Amino acid sequence: MHQHSLHAHARHLGWSRDTEPALRVAPDDRVELDCAEASGGQITRDSDVEAVHRLAPERANPLSGPIAVDGAEPGDALVVTVEDLAPRGWGWTANIPGFGLLADEFPDAHLIVSRHDARNIDFPAGARLPLRPFIGTIGVAPAEPGTHPVIPPYRTGGNMDCRDLIAGSKLWLPVAVPEALLSLGDTHLAQGDGEVCGTAIEAPMGVAISVALHKGAAPETPVLEIPAGPLRRETGAGFLVTTGIGPDLMACARDAVRRLIDRLCAEQGLSAVDAYCLISVAADLHISEIVDAPNWMVSAYLPRAVLG
Amino acid sequence: MHQHSLHAHARHLGWSRDTEPALRVAPDDRVELDCAEASGGQITRDSDVEAVHRLAPERANPLSGPIAVDGAEPGDALVVTVEDLAPRGWGWTANIPGFGLLADEFPDAHLIVSRHDARNIDFPAGARLPLRPFIGTIGVAPAEPGTHPVIPPYRTGGNMDCRDLIAGSKLWLPVAVPEALLSLGDTHLAQGDGEVCGTAIEAPMGVAISVALHKGAAPETPVLEIPAGPLRRETGAGFLVTTGIGPDLMACARDAVRRLIDRLCAEQGLSAVDAYCLISVAADLHISEIVDAPNWMVSAYLPRAVLG
Repeated sequence: MHQHSLHAHARHLGWSRDTEPALRVAPDDRVELDCAEASGGQITRDSDVEAVHRLAPERANPLSGPIAVDGAEPGDALVVTVEDLAPRGWGWTANIPGFGLLADEFPDAHLIVSRHDARNIDFPAGARLPLRPFIGTIGVAPAEPGTHPVIPPYRTGGNMDCRDLIAGSKLWLPVAVPEALLSLGDTHLAQGDGEVCGTAIEAPMGVAISVALHKGAAPETPVLEIPAGPLRRETGAGFLVTTGIGPDLMACARDAVRRLIDRLCAEQGLSAVDAYCLISVAADLHISEIVDAPNWMVSAYLPRAVLG
Repeated sequence: MHQHSLHAHARHLGWSRDTEPALRVAPDDRVELDCAEASGGQITRDSDVEAVHRLAPERANPLSGPIAVDGAEPGDALVVTVEDLAPRGWGWTANIPGFGLLADEFPDAHLIVSRHDARNIDFPAGARLPLRPFIGTIGVAPAEPGTHPVIPPYRTGGNMDCRDLIAGSKLWLPVAVPEALLSLGDTHLAQGDGEVCGTAIEAPMGVAISVALHKGAAPETPVLEIPAGPLRRETGAGFLVTTGIGPDLMACARDAVRRLIDRLCAEQGLSAVDAYCLISVAADLHISEIVDAPNWMVSAYLPRAVLG
């Protein structure tokens, strides 16, 4: 077992089978990486909303890598274990015009910069959240030629924003090209299922992973094993749950989020955009019901423990 | 505060503003009900799969009620507190041909009858689940004339299958007709978010509720307050998570469930239909990512603690 380091210069934008590897490792090796936050340095801990106005989207979501894995072939499973995540004391959440589940209703740029200690995040829009760092984007190069943008997720992974890719979790990725070409980044301090405003608490982070290879065991899409123990959510103060009901899951999700925004504004005195950002980092979208045609129900769960 | 009882004869099928109330109550009254399981007696604790073959869908999902609430008017919120849920020792889960998220892939009838004690459910298809009874269907009469089927949920509630409508939860319903006309039933011993095979662990149950009225405070769709304390899921053994990734949330949900079925068959030796039913009662559909166009991700979370 060897230990490798991948430093800040080894970052790229776009998924491509033709990107030159930044590092070569063997199965069972460990890699330490210095991951950028999702703006790639365009937003800092001292930024104000002007930084969101100036944001160049073509520089967003830089990834560390790619890492070539010896012996990996299409059809194998690359199993990544998240060994350690070390955030740097701060993170940002923004409403970026044109981006997010309710982009049409929130046209104005907004920025919230959070600080954290070893356990909690001070989210300066009415909340205090447990620190729960995870990797937002991780994947392998797709088989299809060309360069594929880093914003959408693919069957080979990428920007999945699964908020349980925490330290201790294992991710099974389907290798699609020789040597796999693993990349990761977009590290987050906390997020709700859905990441509804389009951003989580975006944070630079030290990351340690190990990689293993399971020959011929590629899953069709990524599979995650979450370790025993860590709660998905603080249940100590219960949940406030709003709903969206109808024949289209996307419309249901939008309705549930809108109604949670309205409740938080009325009850907590938050501005609508602060409520929207709070939901993005702390509330979860669940599909409560998906079989009773013609209507489904999506629910937005806010754990009351986060409210100040 | 008065106490009322609604017995087994007071059941109806269909939501209608014209159904004669079975009971009249005042705000802050308490009502005890004897709720049928979703087959309305067509499936018993001694049934085999023949009962699913013979199932008459027009007799499914009988509701206790309606309960007229003095002074309730359109625009009010009817707030129902679930005071107590007393299941009767058993429940059933079925794959009903033509019904469910993967109906096209599971054409054959299947029945699983579970027993439970005060804490756990013995689900005889490879699992032991915490007993977590809740109300699957609860709502008020819609404003629109006519009789509306009981299977779909509506903005006035109904078959929402929100698995957190447990004892201690409070549900805010939008009153749409004079006296509200509250009905409920379809009680469940346990269920996953989504109820993917179309049934939960369907169980007859004693139910106690209290009702309160908040004038002019109707939510647009139901809102739930879940009490402090009860965990949503047992996290002691971690989670197995499969994913569906693509531009359509429904297709993502189907993919995630299919892949969890495949994993459970391979790992636990379950039949595909048993795995499908187990997922319906024990695994949760979450929207992990809904903003990174053009692809979204739905995840199916199975808590490993339920596996034998």
